[in-house]
Amino acid sequence: MHSVISLLGFAAGTLTTLSFIPQVHKAWQSKRCSDLSWGMLLAFSSGVVLWLIYGLLLKAAPIIVANAVTLVLLIALITMKIRYKS
Amino acid sequence: MHSVISLLGFAAGTLTTLSFIPQVHKAWQSKRCSDLSWGMLLAFSSGVVLWLIYGLLLKAAPIIVANAVTLVLLIALITMKIRYKS
Repeated sequence: MHSVISLLGFAAGTLTTLSFIPQVHKAWQSKRCSDLSWGMLLAFSSGVVLWLIYGLLLKAAPIIVANAVTLVLLIALITMKIRYKS
Repeated sequence: MHSVISLLGFAAGTLTTLSFIPQVHKAWQSKRCSDLSWGMLLAFSSGVVLWLIYGLLLKAAPIIVANAVTLVLLIALITMKIRYKS
């Protein structure tokens, strides 16, 4: 059962993490992030950092991996939002 | 220690969940969601559903509550993306 739960966690993490790839791709291609909210980007990034610590304390690999990758993609979006400011 | 970890999880969940409120507010005010990627919205929503199941199996309250509320906000964004299509 434990491995089934971990597998489900990895599937969940893969989806929520990979979901930022089309968003980064769209922003990169359109050079537009103006409909993305600063509040969302900053609050989400802060939350992802806390989830990362939570995952490390729980030693829950799916939570750790998913949030580490999500953080990298969020930093990419924030960088583009600054560069393509409108 | 267990309660400290849960508290951290609740803080993380509060941030990643509430982060969608400024995004929903921005979309509602501007009547624009065109810079939001469909791939992100749909993959993220699918992932959130799996995180919800993961949290239920782990009986991890922070994961359950955070993902339930996030799902509601994502449904609001998807609904606006359809209504304000551009």
